[in-house]
Amino acid sequence: MQIAIFLYDHMTALDAIGPYEVLSRLPGAETVFVATRPGPVRCDTRHLALVADAGIAEVTTPDVLVVPGWSGARQTELLGPGAVRDWLREVDRHTTWTTSACTGALVLAAAGLLTGRRATTHWLATDRLAELGARPAHERVVFDGKYVTAAGVSAGIDMALALAARIDGDGTAQAIQLGIEYDPQPPFDAGSAAKAPGDIVAAMTAIRDFILDGAPA
Amino acid sequence: MQIAIFLYDHMTALDAIGPYEVLSRLPGAETVFVATRPGPVRCDTRHLALVADAGIAEVTTPDVLVVPGWSGARQTELLGPGAVRDWLREVDRHTTWTTSACTGALVLAAAGLLTGRRATTHWLATDRLAELGARPAHERVVFDGKYVTAAGVSAGIDMALALAARIDGDGTAQAIQLGIEYDPQPPFDAGSAAKAPGDIVAAMTAIRDFILDGAPA
Repeated sequence: MQIAIFLYDHMTALDAIGPYEVLSRLPGAETVFVATRPGPVRCDTRHLALVADAGIAEVTTPDVLVVPGWSGARQTELLGPGAVRDWLREVDRHTTWTTSACTGALVLAAAGLLTGRRATTHWLATDRLAELGARPAHERVVFDGKYVTAAGVSAGIDMALALAARIDGDGTAQAIQLGIEYDPQPPFDAGSAAKAPGDIVAAMTAIRDFILDGAPA
Repeated sequence: MQIAIFLYDHMTALDAIGPYEVLSRLPGAETVFVATRPGPVRCDTRHLALVADAGIAEVTTPDVLVVPGWSGARQTELLGPGAVRDWLREVDRHTTWTTSACTGALVLAAAGLLTGRRATTHWLATDRLAELGARPAHERVVFDGKYVTAAGVSAGIDMALALAARIDGDGTAQAIQLGIEYDPQPPFDAGSAAKAPGDIVAAMTAIRDFILDGAPA
């Protein structure tokens, strides 16, 4: 079972690493990080690069596709026509599961893969997901057929555990959860727009386009 | 404020990326991934490499140090005398906070930094932490002076949020939590040895040395 995790400039590392740390531990998993070209790919903070061991030309029939989200960059190439879109559509013809974390759902939607489907994304990007033809759901993990989307950043961990259970059963998913000791105890209950202090939600909403797109082009 | 995240062969990616995704978003944070030498560093699954932008010779006075854990390798060099230990001790003289996730606590303890201190680590490594002179606590995050340790893998996220609050206040930590939408909803309640099914705990405990050290040398 090949699990392909797609990397691109300005991606958010945890969007990719959360699902990776779960799915790569599935029995028989062969995980490959893939980008347009092999080599280091710089994340949104610019302070970290992950290495893509393969280019998209080498990975054409993965069983599972994971697309992380990004922040701070106008992703014209990623969301428009071109080699990435072509690759996503071709790969999706072969996958058993096509998945995303955070604004990775926008990438799938822009490629036409979520049209009319229920899906979730980062809470700041819900409107954009609707504009791209999906039906946004305010849920942490959404399954719609073989398409599995997760809410913002850390939600990829929950998504991957739910997916691991579908792929190899509850026991395997629980063993992976215990292995990564995922017994979350956040010090605050501020992880969703419904629960966080209103002033924090308002401040982030006010700079939504900056958070997603970075400085105006 | 410089945040140094130490990378080494066979580390567990999420141990580093969880704290990174939180702490790098602190106002004024300058995050640097550092290894013995700059360049790609391969993680425990062997399917991913993170890039260290700096070598230890270049990073001598960080404000915050983060040491991730590993799996599947006998870490003789990491836990014994040598350049890494010397660097950890020297750097620790300058830090405001010295932290770890998962078995990173063993690295700190082996360097003598946790002697007599309360600390936590991956649930499979508690005995080893005691052997190295720390006082293991079965808690998700432990503060003892400037030393902050987290339980296994995913606990680094909780540790970093608690630390972010100490560094820049609750509001900042909550904003970061909302930014990474950390509203965990694991599909199972199996993330600790106290809660997971007994047969899974027993099976993992039986192969503890293999999980930590890999194939016998």
